[in-house]
Amino acid sequence: MQCIPIAYKLDQKGGFVVNPGEEGVVVRPVFYVSDGTGITAETIGHSLLTQFTGFRFQTDRISFVDDADKARDTADRIRRAGIAAGTRPIVVNSCVDASLSVLLAESGALMLDVFAPFIEPLELELGTPRQNRVGQAHGLVDFETYHRRINAMNFALTHDDGIALEYEEADVILVAVSRAGKTPTCVYLALHYGVRAANYPLTDQDLETDRLPARLRQYRRKLFGLTIDPERLQQIRQERRPNSTYSKLETCKREVAAAEAMFQVERIPTLSTTNKSIEEISSKVLSTLGLQREMF
Amino acid sequence: MQCIPIAYKLDQKGGFVVNPGEEGVVVRPVFYVSDGTGITAETIGHSLLTQFTGFRFQTDRISFVDDADKARDTADRIRRAGIAAGTRPIVVNSCVDASLSVLLAESGALMLDVFAPFIEPLELELGTPRQNRVGQAHGLVDFETYHRRINAMNFALTHDDGIALEYEEADVILVAVSRAGKTPTCVYLALHYGVRAANYPLTDQDLETDRLPARLRQYRRKLFGLTIDPERLQQIRQERRPNSTYSKLETCKREVAAAEAMFQVERIPTLSTTNKSIEEISSKVLSTLGLQREMF
Repeated sequence: MQCIPIAYKLDQKGGFVVNPGEEGVVVRPVFYVSDGTGITAETIGHSLLTQFTGFRFQTDRISFVDDADKARDTADRIRRAGIAAGTRPIVVNSCVDASLSVLLAESGALMLDVFAPFIEPLELELGTPRQNRVGQAHGLVDFETYHRRINAMNFALTHDDGIALEYEEADVILVAVSRAGKTPTCVYLALHYGVRAANYPLTDQDLETDRLPARLRQYRRKLFGLTIDPERLQQIRQERRPNSTYSKLETCKREVAAAEAMFQVERIPTLSTTNKSIEEISSKVLSTLGLQREMF
Repeated sequence: MQCIPIAYKLDQKGGFVVNPGEEGVVVRPVFYVSDGTGITAETIGHSLLTQFTGFRFQTDRISFVDDADKARDTADRIRRAGIAAGTRPIVVNSCVDASLSVLLAESGALMLDVFAPFIEPLELELGTPRQNRVGQAHGLVDFETYHRRINAMNFALTHDDGIALEYEEADVILVAVSRAGKTPTCVYLALHYGVRAANYPLTDQDLETDRLPARLRQYRRKLFGLTIDPERLQQIRQERRPNSTYSKLETCKREVAAAEAMFQVERIPTLSTTNKSIEEISSKVLSTLGLQREMF
C-alpha cells in the first residue's frame, strides 16, 4: 500500500482538482472523519488499508466535525472528491454522535464506522447504554495525567544521551551506540506511556571491554540494548556527519559488534531497530521489561 | 471511566491475584491483544471504554501474540484473570490472523475484533481479498519514512525554546509563554506527523508590546499561539520552580494577558491548552494551519 496525503485545490470555479496518480493506477480518496482529533479513525483506518496492496489511497483527515453544519460541509467535500477522483471515496468515521454519521453518509462514500460494531455488544455486556461523549479518548484530561506525561517527557529530554544521570528514577535505560534509535524511543515511551526512559550512549571507551560500564551495573534490571544493522547505521550517520570517521562503515561495524558482544555477555535484552518503527521498538521494550502502562 | 493498569501477581500455586477495586465497584479486566504492537487495539479500545462511565476497567496490553502457542497462553491468562476478578473479561483484539482470534476466543471473554467488521465491506469495495500481513501498520518501515520522522524530531529538539532559529525550514512555530505546552506539542507533531515544529518562548521583553517579536514577523503564516489559564500555568510553574517570581499567580496572569493581547492584535490563531490533551492541541494546530500530514 502506498498512502499519500491528499493534495487538491479549489479551482477558480470552486471545483476540486485532485492530483492524479500514476497512469493506470486508480487513486482512491480516503477520509478519516471525527468529531474529535480523528486519531482513533486514522489509526484503525491505516491498519485496515495496509491490508490491501496494489492500491493508492489519498488520505485526508477531517477533525473536529462536531456539529450538523460541519458534517454537511464534510459530506459535500467528500462527495466532490469522489467525483474528481472518478471513484467512490472511503470514509473511516469515528463520530460518537450517530446523527453526524447519518449526515456524513450522504456523501455516498463507503462508510466504515469504527465504533458502531462494538457499542451494542459492550452495552449488552455492561448492562448500560453508552454515553455520547464526544472526543473523550483524546480530549479533556485531568491535570494529574497531563502532568505525568509532561514529567516523563522532560525526564527523557534531560536524560538524553547521558546528559543527566539520575538513573535511580528511570523506569528503563536504553543502551546503544550513537544513532541506533535511543532518543526517539525514549521520547515515544514518555509521551505515550508516561514511562521514564533514560538513555546511555556507549562510548569508544565503554566498547573496549565486553562488560557493562560501571555506572550502569546497579541498574541491570532496567537496561535494554538496542542494536542495528551496521550498513543502516552508516547510512544514518552519513546524513548527520558526512564522510567522518564516525560515519565510516568500518567504525559502525566495530561499534555494533562490540555492543552486541557486551549485551550477550551481560545478558541484556536486545532488539535490532533496523526496519522497525518507533512504535514497534517501544512496544518490545515495554513487553520485554514487563512495564505495564496504559497508553495515553 | 477510570482505567487502571491491571496489577496482578501469580500466587504461590500459580493462581492469579488481581488487585481488588474499591468496595462495591466491580473491576472488569480488559485485554488489548495483538499480533503486532497492540496500538490499534488499545487506541480503539480506549475510545470505546471512555463511552461507558461508572466502571473500573483494569487494562492490560498483550503484544506480539503471533503464533498459536502464544495465543493459547494468552487465552489461558485471560480466562484466569476473569475467574480471579469474578467477571467476564473483555478482549479488544487486533490479530490479523483469524486463526489466532479463534484461539483467543476460547478464553470465554467478550471478543471485540477491531478489523473483522470492516474487512468484508473493504474487500467488496476494492474487489480484492485482504492480505494477512501481521502488524504492518506499526511494523516494518522504509528508511525514508523512518528518517523523515527522526529528522522532524531532531528539528523539534534543536528548535526547542528558541535555541536554534532556522525558522525558514519550520512548518509551524508555536508561540507562547513558558510552560504553556509548546515542547510536548512540538515533539508530538514531529513524532506522529513528521511536521517540523519549532517553538518560540515569549520573553518579558517580547511581552512589553502587543506586536510580534521582530524575528517572527516574516513567518506570520507559520505561527500558532498557545495560551493557558493563568491558575493552571501557576500550578505547572510551581512544580518546576516553587515559590519563585516565575511561578507567582500575578506573573502568570500578566504574561498570559500580554500574550493573548499580542495574538489578538496580530491575528495569530490561538488555542487554550488548559485541560486539553497533547493529541487535541496537535490536531487543532494541524487543522487550523491546514497542514495535511499522514499520521505515522
